[in-house]
Amino acid sequence: MSVQPVLIGGQWEVPDTELTFRAFNPATREPLAETYPVSDWADIEIAIDAAYEAFCQVRGWPGDRFAAFLERYADRIDARADELVAMAHTETALPVQPRLKDVELPRTTNQLRQAAAAAREGSWALPTIDSKTNIRSIYAPIGPVVVFGPNNFPFAFNGMAGGDFAAAVAAGNPVIAKGHSSHPGTTRLFAEEAFLAAQDTDMPPGFVQMIYRTTHQDGCRLVSHPKIGATGYTGSRTAGLVLKEAADRAGKPIYLELSSINPVFVLPGALEERMEEIADQFTASCLLGTGQFCTNPGLVIVPKGDAGHRFVQAVKRRFEQAAAGVLLSEGVERSFAKSLNVLLRAGAYVVTGGKPAGERGYGYQNTLLEVDGDTFVSNAAPLQTEVFGNCSLFVIASDGDQMVRIAELLEGNLTGCIYSHTDGRDDALYDRIAPILRQRVGRLLNDKMPTGVAVTPAMNHGGPYPATGHPGFTSVGIPASLRRFAMLQCYDNVRPHRLPPLLRDENPGGRAWRLIDGQWTRADVSG
Amino acid sequence: MSVQPVLIGGQWEVPDTELTFRAFNPATREPLAETYPVSDWADIEIAIDAAYEAFCQVRGWPGDRFAAFLERYADRIDARADELVAMAHTETALPVQPRLKDVELPRTTNQLRQAAAAAREGSWALPTIDSKTNIRSIYAPIGPVVVFGPNNFPFAFNGMAGGDFAAAVAAGNPVIAKGHSSHPGTTRLFAEEAFLAAQDTDMPPGFVQMIYRTTHQDGCRLVSHPKIGATGYTGSRTAGLVLKEAADRAGKPIYLELSSINPVFVLPGALEERMEEIADQFTASCLLGTGQFCTNPGLVIVPKGDAGHRFVQAVKRRFEQAAAGVLLSEGVERSFAKSLNVLLRAGAYVVTGGKPAGERGYGYQNTLLEVDGDTFVSNAAPLQTEVFGNCSLFVIASDGDQMVRIAELLEGNLTGCIYSHTDGRDDALYDRIAPILRQRVGRLLNDKMPTGVAVTPAMNHGGPYPATGHPGFTSVGIPASLRRFAMLQCYDNVRPHRLPPLLRDENPGGRAWRLIDGQWTRADVSG
Repeated sequence: MSVQPVLIGGQWEVPDTELTFRAFNPATREPLAETYPVSDWADIEIAIDAAYEAFCQVRGWPGDRFAAFLERYADRIDARADELVAMAHTETALPVQPRLKDVELPRTTNQLRQAAAAAREGSWALPTIDSKTNIRSIYAPIGPVVVFGPNNFPFAFNGMAGGDFAAAVAAGNPVIAKGHSSHPGTTRLFAEEAFLAAQDTDMPPGFVQMIYRTTHQDGCRLVSHPKIGATGYTGSRTAGLVLKEAADRAGKPIYLELSSINPVFVLPGALEERMEEIADQFTASCLLGTGQFCTNPGLVIVPKGDAGHRFVQAVKRRFEQAAAGVLLSEGVERSFAKSLNVLLRAGAYVVTGGKPAGERGYGYQNTLLEVDGDTFVSNAAPLQTEVFGNCSLFVIASDGDQMVRIAELLEGNLTGCIYSHTDGRDDALYDRIAPILRQRVGRLLNDKMPTGVAVTPAMNHGGPYPATGHPGFTSVGIPASLRRFAMLQCYDNVRPHRLPPLLRDENPGGRAWRLIDGQWTRADVSG
Repeated sequence: MSVQPVLIGGQWEVPDTELTFRAFNPATREPLAETYPVSDWADIEIAIDAAYEAFCQVRGWPGDRFAAFLERYADRIDARADELVAMAHTETALPVQPRLKDVELPRTTNQLRQAAAAAREGSWALPTIDSKTNIRSIYAPIGPVVVFGPNNFPFAFNGMAGGDFAAAVAAGNPVIAKGHSSHPGTTRLFAEEAFLAAQDTDMPPGFVQMIYRTTHQDGCRLVSHPKIGATGYTGSRTAGLVLKEAADRAGKPIYLELSSINPVFVLPGALEERMEEIADQFTASCLLGTGQFCTNPGLVIVPKGDAGHRFVQAVKRRFEQAAAGVLLSEGVERSFAKSLNVLLRAGAYVVTGGKPAGERGYGYQNTLLEVDGDTFVSNAAPLQTEVFGNCSLFVIASDGDQMVRIAELLEGNLTGCIYSHTDGRDDALYDRIAPILRQRVGRLLNDKMPTGVAVTPAMNHGGPYPATGHPGFTSVGIPASLRRFAMLQCYDNVRPHRLPPLLRDENPGGRAWRLIDGQWTRADVSG
């Protein structure tokens, strides 16, 4: 039985390890053929040293160099799209079309190309020049970045190809990717192409590296290692918080996307106006990807009364009519059961679903839960447990006051939505709920479900703890996502020829926006 | 014996506490007359609740409101300058002129006014609009901010008036200031004026509050409290790391400025060219404020040989000729002795000084230490112990290679300096040291000592751990320092009249720079 190699130190290495794992086909629960290694500390240390050595070589390189790599890599991914899609489909059971082939893979290469464009252009680094004092500053690469990819986006958030990878590289950092154990084959294909793209564009060995899995203890050592600059992590709250503690203690930045139930407030007027439409939108959003989205609407607050009741019934019908999708892994299925149980014990009850799907693959029935507002208010902590998957909890609020109270009890989330009547009749209630919800979410939506996360400069895919580790950063959206993997570097009285090009009087290429004496401009510093 | 009141919940409250303390005149070691309380948790909780209530009232207010308060406060400080200077002089023994009256107090009011201007103008919040997707984002107030002021700047970093205070308020947050125990009277005067300025400008009760001291345990509870948005801390590494752990665990941002020895590399050519001049600059920088600066040059790397030897002797003479200043407190004196001892045991030896000053006040002789490069390399951790005060350690490096090696062994620092010959003869060595030093410091200087920290947009008063808790933030420099006390808030499909004014199509007043579809502009969104 041969073990798949890892990409460390500039080459594919077959590790000498006894600890291995296999991935499963979620649609059949059967193990896949390949065996993958759990890397030991010796191998991880090789990767760390190589990444640091690569960093020492590339620091100071212009953004063009990183852009060239990212673009070459995106082209290579495009050329291998069919194989990537087939592999990801086998490992995740996510639909080939439209999801993997038409949506997620194009999004992934688009992210890589957007990041490349940002690296070339340079404005992301907020070059700032005070001409009178001759003090200049810029965001510069922070050092080797570790990226832990999640299970639910085998492409767009893959540690080896997703948004964190793109941002870390565009900011000028080597990356050590930790693939997710549920789709190692997909990650391997990416790593093969990244490796070749790095060779094509003369990046140093160790600039991109990939391991499949570590022990928890080694993960903590990795994120807190002196040679590591920062870490990006998307995944479960439990594992994330263990890494956070280790990184925090070492003073190493770690950017986490942990969990979110993405509350949706449906105000009375909205139901009067367009109940069926909202039920359609909600169902599509909640069941997309079998609900396995960080921005899945897992908590819906609806008003008590006839309209609220009919809304629940409308969603119930849709949930029952829709086929239950496959869950990503046995772990997700087990966690679904466990979290569901927490909600039920906390006072929620099943409107529909709540049982294993009974299919060959991993899965649960589309599950709609309900709880009355009083119970939620008195038991708000457990009732905010995330059920990762095709499940949502409807809270029946007795009145507007209780909706406000529920908003006050919410934990930090990635998103929060409010649906209201277009004629303004809900506005008084909106104005009470919105400021409270606003402070608890990274992205506030009106009349729109949260699952779409556009890759656009104003996007914030972030939010207050425990949705993430810091409410000032976003993991999606370029250029802001790049600044996570950068440190602020100031130059005080440094001789002109020693300055990074973007901080010299002459703006190289005239592409980057720079803040000169308090004004944003693309001009040179005027003599 | 009456206890001084604290400013909590919108009024001056005389606490019912048995735990009290007094400040000392550092020049005489005698206790000052007033007695100050250590606040108990009940009082702290009043402050937290009041701050949160104030926050709920002011969120959504335009920057003008916070600017008006800051400007009124600055005016009030100016009007009470003499009393503030006298009080700070009594409590810190820092010279009235030029330090307190001509430098630090004007700097403080200047910071408040610069912060006010930034709040009015709005660009600090990086308003970002994607017109095609109708996604918009902006940095918005994070919630009540706790500011712990340090001992060494009774004005410019005072929890109630300094840079963190100004930044937190300008970003739109209420502040709970924790004054430093060594200058409670100064902090009280500030709080009196802040309280009146808040009344003058119709700020809600609880917008500015002040306590003098807490137990360590209550400090941890405070920074991790759910109603607190973030914390700014400047002070000792030990106390700071205790607070950091508590805040990190609660997912609350905490910005720390902990300690720094600010390495200075003096390359051979620089000594050949201008040894006496550098000795003058170094001495002035190192003894300024009795060396009690976060940016004090505490580690100087000089080349072995005749020039290096003469440089050490030149500094020795100057140290011996200069009067030893007064240290801020008994604690600083004790810590000086302790840290000095760590350095001596680690292999450093005394060139001059090293003994208590023998004056009436707290103090040590101006102290110059030396260690050879081999010893530093083999014992780099203890030899980077900060002696807070009028002390510096010279490392005699055997050659350029060893200078490079020393740079590699440095911890994170606020600043790093390199002096080199103006004709370029040191450039090869500069080019080896600079990239290594660059990654370890927030601000890199050429041919200039680090003690001056200009309040200017490109300033970075920050750096890698353990100098601070995160290398992406600066505590000095407007507008960047404001963003520490803000969260990223995105609006997705939100109806136009519900958007914050700075995110509407029309740019209110046309003052703020906004990133619209990737371009910085002050224009409206074009229809």
